[in-house]
Amino acid sequence: MRRIVADRFRRLFNRSFLLHRHHHNHNHPPFPASSSLTSHYPFSPYRFFFSTPFSSMASDSPFPVTAQNINPKVLKCEYAVRGEVVTLAQNLQKDLLANPGSHPFDEILYCNIGNPQSLGQSPITFFREVLALTDHPAILDKSETQGLFSADAIERAWQIVEQIPGRATGAYSHSQGVKGLRDTIAAGIEERDGFPANPDDIFMTDGASPAVHNMMQLLIRSENDGILCPIPQYPLYSASIALHGGFLVPYYLDEASGWGLEIPELKKQLDAAKSKGINVRALVVINPGNPTGQVLSEENQRHIVDFCKQEGLVLLADEVYQENVYVPEKKFHSFKKVSRSMGYGENDVTLVSFQSVSKGYHGECGKRGGYMEVTGFSAEVREQIYKMASVNLCSNISGQILASLVMSPPKVGDESYESFMAEKGNILASLARRAKTLEDAFNKLEGVTCNKAEGAMYLFPQIRLSQKAIKAAEEAKTAPDNFYCKRLLNATGVVVVPGSGFGQVPGTWHFRCTILPQEEKIPAIVSRLTEFHEKFMDEFRD
Amino acid sequence: MRRIVADRFRRLFNRSFLLHRHHHNHNHPPFPASSSLTSHYPFSPYRFFFSTPFSSMASDSPFPVTAQNINPKVLKCEYAVRGEVVTLAQNLQKDLLANPGSHPFDEILYCNIGNPQSLGQSPITFFREVLALTDHPAILDKSETQGLFSADAIERAWQIVEQIPGRATGAYSHSQGVKGLRDTIAAGIEERDGFPANPDDIFMTDGASPAVHNMMQLLIRSENDGILCPIPQYPLYSASIALHGGFLVPYYLDEASGWGLEIPELKKQLDAAKSKGINVRALVVINPGNPTGQVLSEENQRHIVDFCKQEGLVLLADEVYQENVYVPEKKFHSFKKVSRSMGYGENDVTLVSFQSVSKGYHGECGKRGGYMEVTGFSAEVREQIYKMASVNLCSNISGQILASLVMSPPKVGDESYESFMAEKGNILASLARRAKTLEDAFNKLEGVTCNKAEGAMYLFPQIRLSQKAIKAAEEAKTAPDNFYCKRLLNATGVVVVPGSGFGQVPGTWHFRCTILPQEEKIPAIVSRLTEFHEKFMDEFRD
Repeated sequence: MRRIVADRFRRLFNRSFLLHRHHHNHNHPPFPASSSLTSHYPFSPYRFFFSTPFSSMASDSPFPVTAQNINPKVLKCEYAVRGEVVTLAQNLQKDLLANPGSHPFDEILYCNIGNPQSLGQSPITFFREVLALTDHPAILDKSETQGLFSADAIERAWQIVEQIPGRATGAYSHSQGVKGLRDTIAAGIEERDGFPANPDDIFMTDGASPAVHNMMQLLIRSENDGILCPIPQYPLYSASIALHGGFLVPYYLDEASGWGLEIPELKKQLDAAKSKGINVRALVVINPGNPTGQVLSEENQRHIVDFCKQEGLVLLADEVYQENVYVPEKKFHSFKKVSRSMGYGENDVTLVSFQSVSKGYHGECGKRGGYMEVTGFSAEVREQIYKMASVNLCSNISGQILASLVMSPPKVGDESYESFMAEKGNILASLARRAKTLEDAFNKLEGVTCNKAEGAMYLFPQIRLSQKAIKAAEEAKTAPDNFYCKRLLNATGVVVVPGSGFGQVPGTWHFRCTILPQEEKIPAIVSRLTEFHEKFMDEFRD
Repeated sequence: MRRIVADRFRRLFNRSFLLHRHHHNHNHPPFPASSSLTSHYPFSPYRFFFSTPFSSMASDSPFPVTAQNINPKVLKCEYAVRGEVVTLAQNLQKDLLANPGSHPFDEILYCNIGNPQSLGQSPITFFREVLALTDHPAILDKSETQGLFSADAIERAWQIVEQIPGRATGAYSHSQGVKGLRDTIAAGIEERDGFPANPDDIFMTDGASPAVHNMMQLLIRSENDGILCPIPQYPLYSASIALHGGFLVPYYLDEASGWGLEIPELKKQLDAAKSKGINVRALVVINPGNPTGQVLSEENQRHIVDFCKQEGLVLLADEVYQENVYVPEKKFHSFKKVSRSMGYGENDVTLVSFQSVSKGYHGECGKRGGYMEVTGFSAEVREQIYKMASVNLCSNISGQILASLVMSPPKVGDESYESFMAEKGNILASLARRAKTLEDAFNKLEGVTCNKAEGAMYLFPQIRLSQKAIKAAEEAKTAPDNFYCKRLLNATGVVVVPGSGFGQVPGTWHFRCTILPQEEKIPAIVSRLTEFHEKFMDEFRD
């Protein structure tokens, strides 16, 4: 039995390897190449096979479930944002607590994940007032409540409670979310885009991740179904494609032109995939970009829409950073707006837009609210999407309420309007300053170049590593960027994610660093990073 | 292309059919038989193939995604609790609103789903106080707060906020859930069971459903992997097994002995599945039972634990109704407690226990809180479970907080203790009365027998239908139980779920009805049901 399993693993691995080993020395290979222990190109779904050799797996396990007999798709899936470096960081944090002074830093700074409130960002008062009141509507008409909550929060909470059938804030809702809240969201989309939105197109979800999984589950039938994904990409996509057994068809963002998304590259990769028998079903576009921070121009978006229409692809638009744009020359445009402004109607383009309450200026990650707006599907397929939603009953109501608030914040004249605008403005302005300071700091480092974060919450600097550093990484049986990031963590307490977790052009090395540490901490971070980097470069100078 | 897809469907269907057509005329067939249009035995994963003939599918669809080219596992999946009858009910509700008086009832009574607050049950005050305070901790030290909230709710909210790293109630937590809240839950399990629980074994989830999906995803590699499921079962299990491409191996609960779970039946079905080349990976046990309401005896549970141990099966214990026991002669025992009391330690039995905040006396369905306690897995498999959790970042924090409250409610001496105990006691006592009243009413109907609801939230009466009724259903191209339930809905506004959605012994017909309508409405429901049933029986008398 064990032999059979091991054989199966080898076949799986060999198959991937065969599919991937074309165009080996090309700068933008049509498929990820994976040729040596240290080169996890362009991302590393095979790390498991390297890092856990079969011989070290449990053989006569007392357990009925072993790494050899679980779903190999689970084994294959990787999620670097909470991967090896983060586990190391958690261990360091425990160690710091147990043995203060044992490391050259006093705290771990988690720059690995877009989790603003974990780094000290305060929640938006109005949002939390409404959430508290809808959680405990019994206090809505108490006199003390007037003294504790703003008048418009009380009014909004009443409205929301009335929108929920039977005022039952603790009931499962409609599987797509409370109808009244979807009405509010649709109205918010209309106001944003200037084009109509239909509340029946909204599926509310626990953050954007389950929505992405649902779409992958719907579209992927076998490993011959491919999804075009940007490289670098947010690893939710590679993880979800792996879990659902599909094929990630990479397209490369052009680092030299500020992570440009170019149609000829899309076309080239699509054709290469087709010629290998892959049915490409969908194109993932992340705008503003994660981990890359670029904001697409409207013209570029029009070309993308036309590409999807011509090629019969579903456009999966990750638009969770729509509020996070930091440069005056760029503006967020939703793909739905772009598509409608091109004259395409309901049935012309198949488009799913993902939104989340975790990002924006509010960063309410822990609330797990979000939605997808689903357009251009036939009635029979929509029925299937609805069925998938209904199996999980509904998303959490607090998250649903928050998603409605995000799409319909206080308006001019509301009691909270000014304080809300001040909170929002301060956060966004500060994020823009932090992005610029960190970008400048990275660009000052030897061998490092860093594109601007026009939007989103990340910088993705490239580090040119010496042969000596690459060799040292190889000896440590890890990828060079992973080697660098672990060294950085051990020296400074700063947690960043190696580029190999997102994918990168073979032979280049990057890391993703959030712009989220509080502003007063940025100078210290910069000096720690700089000091570490100089020492590292000196140590591994060829 | 269309031809290939259609062929593929036919192959899929034929394969299922071949696997299922053994033991045709047996009362408890080892595999579901499916032989005619009207017989969806024991549940109906194939209804799609009957109800949507290929010829009626869109052919020259303008959409790139069609019912012919989506994941066939999605097509195969069914979830009757929100299925056809519920869609009909929603349409009737809209119609009632638009045209009052157009139907012989004024309201739709949703007895299809365990959703207590949607039918008027009030939330537990203490739980909602703590949720509101942790949503808006800024008011925790305001003087007005003392007047609005109980002292122990304020104290508990402080404790919880302090347990969250950085007091960041809006941050993503550890992927398993906030450590401090897991500590509380583990302590609650210890108090319940009298055996230790480890907070590192707790994975907090958005309700129990995602936890079940995670386990299915982990265990199911292909259609040759089987999961032993009770028939009747809660259709989350059949849906999840279908979505993950596994094989549901049914075992029949014995209706005559009050839905008894018998080891010889388990063994027979396991052996039959093995002989067909199915690798049976796990046994699902729902205790208290859904839709069947039985509460297992400790002796029976010991035999089940030994069966799993001997056969190398993962025991997937759905224990979400652990607070819902209505008869003095029965008591809930967790499988973990039973297993530990037999002397089995951490590594002897592989057991996953699912818990949810949606059920119990509190019924907080909309909060989507829950957890699984995962024991008896190797470190390397646990790592994979952790990785799957981390891809979705974390479950919602309000749900996490609520799960901690459910496992650690107010104690003697706390300010809220007496009012909490009164709220809890009233709800549970009322549920017990409602269960008994409805059970008695069903048993008075001609041709209906109904086992006692010892626990959970449902009754699952059997209706003996005449040949004439069965023929009428056949003519209406639907299953006889579906036919009955639709008639019932149209006549009374009462929504129940046909037994075919849960599975039943071939040739028997049931429906599931919750015990949740508010007590004052029960007499009217009983008289409407009785009147409908008498007319139905008269109309279809052979």
